[in-house]
Amino acid sequence: MDIAAMREANPDHWMKAAAIRALTLDAVAAANSGHSGMPMGMADVATVLYENHLNFDPKAPDWADRDRFILSAGHGSMLLYSLMYLTGYEDITLDEIKNFRQWGAKTAGHPEYGHARGIETTTGPLGQGIANSVGFAIAEEIQRATWGKNIVNHYTYVMAGDGCLMEGVSQEALALAGMQELSHLIVFWDNNNITIDGTVDIADKTNQPQRFAASGWHVLEIDGHDPKAIDAAISEAKKDPRPSMIACKTHIALGHAAQDTSKGHGALTDADQMAAAKEVYGWTTGPFEVPADIKKSWEDMAKRGQAAHADWDARFDKLSGTKQAEFKRQYAGEAPAKLSAVIRAFKKQTTDSAPKMATRKSSEKTLEVVNAIMPETIGGSADLTGSNNTKTADMGVFHPTDRKGRYVYYGVREHGMAAAMNGMALHGGAKPYGGTFMCFTDYARGAMRLSALMGVPVTYVMTHDSIGLGEDGPTHQPVEHLAMMRATPNTNVFRPADTVETAEAWEMALTSTSTPHVLCLSRQNLPTVRTTHKTKNLSAQGGYVLAEAENKRKAIIMASGSEVEVAMEAKALLEAEGIGARVVSMPCMELFAQQDEAYRKRVLPAGPVRVAVEAGIQQGWDQWLLGERGNHKKAAFVGMDSFGASAPAETLFEKFGITAADVAKAVKDLL
Amino acid sequence: MDIAAMREANPDHWMKAAAIRALTLDAVAAANSGHSGMPMGMADVATVLYENHLNFDPKAPDWADRDRFILSAGHGSMLLYSLMYLTGYEDITLDEIKNFRQWGAKTAGHPEYGHARGIETTTGPLGQGIANSVGFAIAEEIQRATWGKNIVNHYTYVMAGDGCLMEGVSQEALALAGMQELSHLIVFWDNNNITIDGTVDIADKTNQPQRFAASGWHVLEIDGHDPKAIDAAISEAKKDPRPSMIACKTHIALGHAAQDTSKGHGALTDADQMAAAKEVYGWTTGPFEVPADIKKSWEDMAKRGQAAHADWDARFDKLSGTKQAEFKRQYAGEAPAKLSAVIRAFKKQTTDSAPKMATRKSSEKTLEVVNAIMPETIGGSADLTGSNNTKTADMGVFHPTDRKGRYVYYGVREHGMAAAMNGMALHGGAKPYGGTFMCFTDYARGAMRLSALMGVPVTYVMTHDSIGLGEDGPTHQPVEHLAMMRATPNTNVFRPADTVETAEAWEMALTSTSTPHVLCLSRQNLPTVRTTHKTKNLSAQGGYVLAEAENKRKAIIMASGSEVEVAMEAKALLEAEGIGARVVSMPCMELFAQQDEAYRKRVLPAGPVRVAVEAGIQQGWDQWLLGERGNHKKAAFVGMDSFGASAPAETLFEKFGITAADVAKAVKDLL
Repeated sequence: MDIAAMREANPDHWMKAAAIRALTLDAVAAANSGHSGMPMGMADVATVLYENHLNFDPKAPDWADRDRFILSAGHGSMLLYSLMYLTGYEDITLDEIKNFRQWGAKTAGHPEYGHARGIETTTGPLGQGIANSVGFAIAEEIQRATWGKNIVNHYTYVMAGDGCLMEGVSQEALALAGMQELSHLIVFWDNNNITIDGTVDIADKTNQPQRFAASGWHVLEIDGHDPKAIDAAISEAKKDPRPSMIACKTHIALGHAAQDTSKGHGALTDADQMAAAKEVYGWTTGPFEVPADIKKSWEDMAKRGQAAHADWDARFDKLSGTKQAEFKRQYAGEAPAKLSAVIRAFKKQTTDSAPKMATRKSSEKTLEVVNAIMPETIGGSADLTGSNNTKTADMGVFHPTDRKGRYVYYGVREHGMAAAMNGMALHGGAKPYGGTFMCFTDYARGAMRLSALMGVPVTYVMTHDSIGLGEDGPTHQPVEHLAMMRATPNTNVFRPADTVETAEAWEMALTSTSTPHVLCLSRQNLPTVRTTHKTKNLSAQGGYVLAEAENKRKAIIMASGSEVEVAMEAKALLEAEGIGARVVSMPCMELFAQQDEAYRKRVLPAGPVRVAVEAGIQQGWDQWLLGERGNHKKAAFVGMDSFGASAPAETLFEKFGITAADVAKAVKDLL
Repeated sequence: MDIAAMREANPDHWMKAAAIRALTLDAVAAANSGHSGMPMGMADVATVLYENHLNFDPKAPDWADRDRFILSAGHGSMLLYSLMYLTGYEDITLDEIKNFRQWGAKTAGHPEYGHARGIETTTGPLGQGIANSVGFAIAEEIQRATWGKNIVNHYTYVMAGDGCLMEGVSQEALALAGMQELSHLIVFWDNNNITIDGTVDIADKTNQPQRFAASGWHVLEIDGHDPKAIDAAISEAKKDPRPSMIACKTHIALGHAAQDTSKGHGALTDADQMAAAKEVYGWTTGPFEVPADIKKSWEDMAKRGQAAHADWDARFDKLSGTKQAEFKRQYAGEAPAKLSAVIRAFKKQTTDSAPKMATRKSSEKTLEVVNAIMPETIGGSADLTGSNNTKTADMGVFHPTDRKGRYVYYGVREHGMAAAMNGMALHGGAKPYGGTFMCFTDYARGAMRLSALMGVPVTYVMTHDSIGLGEDGPTHQPVEHLAMMRATPNTNVFRPADTVETAEAWEMALTSTSTPHVLCLSRQNLPTVRTTHKTKNLSAQGGYVLAEAENKRKAIIMASGSEVEVAMEAKALLEAEGIGARVVSMPCMELFAQQDEAYRKRVLPAGPVRVAVEAGIQQGWDQWLLGERGNHKKAAFVGMDSFGASAPAETLFEKFGITAADVAKAVKDLL
């Protein structure tokens, strides 16, 4: 690289980009860990983007109509932190830059959503950012159609590296984006030909432009260090009716001894090499020092966005008060005030009619009343719409020909769906939910963990939640998945027993602002077990007494979902023999654990034997069977301890020993 | 479709293919569930493949040099079962066909590896088969180079549908296959333009031929119902030096009223429509009846493969006895006899030198001695070779220019790597292991579950197994993953405490023939805690007494991995205060649970208080803290109950309260 020539050709641009490179070197050296090379390679693209295109307002990082900037290659976090510090985001001070990767810093090793206002999403696990961005862009399209261009009209810019593009989820994302013609989505590919193990070609020779073009993308190829070419490409991309991929040929760790090598990917902390790189850049100030004129030129970049923000405010003020309030409600992620009444009415009606119904169908019935009053829901399924019961009658299908449609056919792309839902929720103004078979949470897990880590209130509609799925067999039957999902912090796993509990679960999901919910729903029909109407959302307590012992209480039977019916039948068998048994429905262990001890003790008093029944493994139940006031000598579990099998569902429940008779026997064995 | 013309043009072919279609209709109708349309659409391709190309021997389904046939679109299982019954595989009788999807049948809803000899892999979760096939083809390439074409020289054929190609894992697989120029891999794409939710274009408009070509594949496009075109395409594909994708334009549910519709994907059981379809086919016999001449023509297809098998036997017999025995050993998946002695010697040497070393490094040291005596190992990493320590000095890199290299740079493709490893193990003659950061088991989970379900002994080398990873932060720090992996049936999750336990874990992994192993390894250095040499593999018991109480025993401290050091330090603190504490190392809970009760009781006697310490969540520990003879009033857990954070590792252990002082305090609080 003839860096001297680059400096000379565009001296102003050069020094602005050099500020990113110098800050990156300094912060990584101070932390003695991190990733220097990516920010040094993509500094030119970022500088041109912020200077000439990105509409942002550092004083109002949450302005609804800002352009979104997503650093999918999250290890290059110092690029983002540099940009935020330089342009004047209040949360990213110079002290934060100096404190990179330390306890309590907002400048975590990878960008963490919620640590600083202005970080749009958590990235680091590769491929997630580019897959989030499809959700951002879908939300923007729907809202642009709904609210008009005066209120919603912005771009989503993404920086993705070779790692992001090798991850399978990127294919799911780009194929969906191409089919949906998401014209406001622009991806920069940091084409530096370097991965951790070596040059990219030791593992990949994919022609990425051809690959994107195959899925309907507009593709441009440029020198990623040429500011004029970068600027022209972005301008062209903004005009094209397709999503755009700009392949930026770059040099990782530009100007450093480690340039163009795998070593350049990591922490470049050698003092002499750092000094040499800074000399090449013409950067003469001390560590963390950005000359005032350069800092000012960065801060000035915000003016375009701030003017746009002021214009937007003026337009927004012209909306009716009702519309303004509705827009703000949706962006605050608050459920409408009437949701509670609507759910109550639905519960009442359900209790009265007492249907026998699969909870996946109960979920659809609930969504019918919810979607009618929540225009911000965006539903979808990974090609199992009819099985997941996720599409309600009033929902149009999101498509290039119908931008107001708010049902997304995601295709067979569970991971891409989950990541897109994260993006929609992060974008704001959208309440996404999406479905697949519960077993295929396996495919979506990478993004589901990020829902929990970021605290975004998406809802996973996971149907066919046990061996009750039947003939499709063990590949499609979740066994360990309830335990796995319950293991994840900040995830509410609901397994409702009937239509009433399903409605209550949905109420919890829709009113949540910081916790994702997983609704685990049955394929098979279940009776209504909540036969007395209660205004209160009993499921909100996680577990509660569904039926009290009639004879002297000797046992407590706990169950969730489809096994609550089994527990109730077992209770009947026991009571007939004079053995009193309480049935505790446990739709959500996480919420039960959050109740105070006195409540938990009332529901699960010491004394009676305890049996839990669930068509999954025992692992998550031990805390209620054995812990707190439970006792291993007086507790048993009826459930699965192996994979399932292919056969009709009723046969499977019998063969695996999950019947009322099995539960009654377990109780009697303990007495 | 002018089916009459098709029948007339190739009457013999037609009736053979019709046998598949008729059996499929009959079996699905009898089960009243299943997927009729795919077998009916791909029957022509399958018939030509079996008749003219596939080298198979129904009397010897395990013949090492057979061609492999992988039904990635596993829901079309009746295609495979029909082929196996018609050609005379002994395990798939007509009774099995009649018993499709019933309890105990070998003909499960989706093909299940191990149910019948001749089923090469379990499919159903979409994309897995095509990703497995890359592993099959890599194993074949390596073995062809190693043993010579006389002994190993066969093709891997795959049938994949639109769903398989939409799943992200397919991109990881095809990009790797293209880069590796796996010329013996031939994929048929069932291009029927139908998914469950509708026509493919509601979710995808990808130009699949262009996409495959972008990754270096040879692509052919044909009419999937024209036997001559199918035959010519396969012949051409076999000659090409690249992997080949044959796009087969087909009609789902050909000849049925549901042809070319989403309904055609599922169970077509309407009696009148079935009768009409059979009439169109010219199929006049009753349900499940295949005319003798047609059955014979199918059985005759095996002759080519059987002759090839006989020739192969003759060539194999010419190998030296030593070579024959070695080949058979590798295909039986048996570790070499000397492995045990080699591991023992390594343990002895380690105990003597007592290194302070990260267990990921311990794993590399172990692999150095293992790989020297096990030529069947195939190592790799998802672009973290230097961090996972998976490449030993003697390993060449698998590449088009070095087919004997047995280290694979998988690229940033955790899911594709895991699925490829399954394929290698299923192929036979290979012992795959592969690494990534433990947090990214999230990405590989779809294939890891199948390792367990199929019982294939692959080894996952999962490093950076806790907050000990440090500054990269919560996106890279596993917290819930130990519990999640322990939740999965038939998976041994090892978290060794030092180099000795790491070697013992590897011995268990390498001698396993039916259980996958996950090795959870530290980033940070750990002291040698096994300071006395024991010949016996103590880790094989899952948990054992590492250090006995010196004072009167009042506490048992259980720990795994990096927290065994913490437990030992806590013990020292307690003993200094006169409190006797036993330390139990628990490297593998699954194996501890499999010991007899007397042993478990000796390790964990009733009486002393119990504290477990692990830098993960509590969920899996409850069984030992509270269950069996534990007691919730006398038990505590020291670990994580939230996501981690970005900071140096030592800071994190302090801030999250996982130190010797915390453990000692927990013990004292209970006493």
